[in-house]
Amino acid sequence: MRERPWRAKRRVEHKRGARRGTGFGRARERRERRDEDDSVILYGWHTVTTALANPARRIRKILVTENALRRLVDEAIALPIAPDVVRPDAIAARLSPDAVHQGLLLEADPLPSPDLTDLNTTGIVLVLDQITDPHNVGAILRTAAAFAVAAVVTTARHSPEATGVLAKSASGALELVPIVTVQNLARAILEMRERGFCAVGLDSDATDDLAATPFAAPLALVLGAEGKGLRQGTRAVCTSLARLDLPGAIKSLNVSNAAALALYVASRRLRES
Amino acid sequence: MRERPWRAKRRVEHKRGARRGTGFGRARERRERRDEDDSVILYGWHTVTTALANPARRIRKILVTENALRRLVDEAIALPIAPDVVRPDAIAARLSPDAVHQGLLLEADPLPSPDLTDLNTTGIVLVLDQITDPHNVGAILRTAAAFAVAAVVTTARHSPEATGVLAKSASGALELVPIVTVQNLARAILEMRERGFCAVGLDSDATDDLAATPFAAPLALVLGAEGKGLRQGTRAVCTSLARLDLPGAIKSLNVSNAAALALYVASRRLRES
Repeated sequence: MRERPWRAKRRVEHKRGARRGTGFGRARERRERRDEDDSVILYGWHTVTTALANPARRIRKILVTENALRRLVDEAIALPIAPDVVRPDAIAARLSPDAVHQGLLLEADPLPSPDLTDLNTTGIVLVLDQITDPHNVGAILRTAAAFAVAAVVTTARHSPEATGVLAKSASGALELVPIVTVQNLARAILEMRERGFCAVGLDSDATDDLAATPFAAPLALVLGAEGKGLRQGTRAVCTSLARLDLPGAIKSLNVSNAAALALYVASRRLRES
Repeated sequence: MRERPWRAKRRVEHKRGARRGTGFGRARERRERRDEDDSVILYGWHTVTTALANPARRIRKILVTENALRRLVDEAIALPIAPDVVRPDAIAARLSPDAVHQGLLLEADPLPSPDLTDLNTTGIVLVLDQITDPHNVGAILRTAAAFAVAAVVTTARHSPEATGVLAKSASGALELVPIVTVQNLARAILEMRERGFCAVGLDSDATDDLAATPFAAPLALVLGAEGKGLRQGTRAVCTSLARLDLPGAIKSLNVSNAAALALYVASRRLRES
């Protein structure tokens, strides 16, 4: 087995400031995660090459088609272990029928889940209340990375297969935005508030629009699942509640679109303040 | 065959002002559409019940499971024709393996595609440049309905199966937002500009952020596909180009998230002007 048989010509840019230097208990967390969820499956060109460029990602196995291998060589993307060169259907057999794998699949360790107490930021953290659909969580992660969100806090744990779907929807953002997994979301929000966070929950019944709700950094934006919204226990621990005004006939947005709007409004207001 | 065997207790609210009273050439358009694309397949509880509540939607066939039929009766939802009561796998057999049909499937005529010349609005129209993925187009339609968009202009025609996926992602909005299908997008934008529209194209290379770009109503917001962006011919006919500033490591959003942000910024600025 050769180490790094190809040299990287260019590497995907990483921004992991929030994770580095803040003392996240990586080793311990990795051990905890591996006990319950042994590996994740990542597939698709962008998802896999971003994972390969992430030094924190431990790769166990690489399945690659001849075509994809040629492209990796052309783009001088380094592989940490020798890949298994396979036919496309050997990759497809590991995935759901509609998965677009582009000839690349990784088995890898899950990324370490940082501790809540290690969350030091002057910016925005997203808190997800029972948003579990991997497509939605992936899309939210991608948008979170676009808005330089420091971390996503959630109670959800995904199966290895769901993590693959999530990573594909996240379009590389799974390697960029730390996910803090907690047991009890209300307790986590209270802990964050004790440490200076302003927690604003999005709620369609709130009195004020987000643009008129007072808030400050560090900010925890709390989002609920489509249809269900925030649980009562979550609502109760927020500093304030805000709605997103929609002028049209449909009064609710897809949750990743709601997250994008909330992040846009909040990041502009924090920048202006 | 009984007509409307059940009475509606409640009906989904419809807002079709833009389509009504503006003289869209429905009959002719319907004839044109039916020549090339004979019927559409709609599935899922919300999609189907919203279609049933739309008087402009011609239903050809209804497949329903016993459970779903009971729920229709409970909710007093009227059916225009007698349904075929079938087992769930008879519905699943018509759809892709991951489709969530909830025991309901319709075969229906496509909705009439209005003429561009009938597009009279003082608000916002979305123009989609080669955005073809039915999940994305559906999500954009849903967000368009939330922002009271008058119509979506596109060159894309979807197959009956793709329309089902699109309608499911649109969560009822396919019945609410008229889709204007044109042959040549650049020519359509020019025609709209001649009729007073300001056409703002979203382009990551634009000089100004959308929040700083001058525009007025009626407004055509022009969006390109992820990765590819606007085609040169589309860019050339816009009144101006604008970008969406993103502070994070990922510099592009999912296209439905980009549409949501653009609609939010534009509708607030039009309201304030």
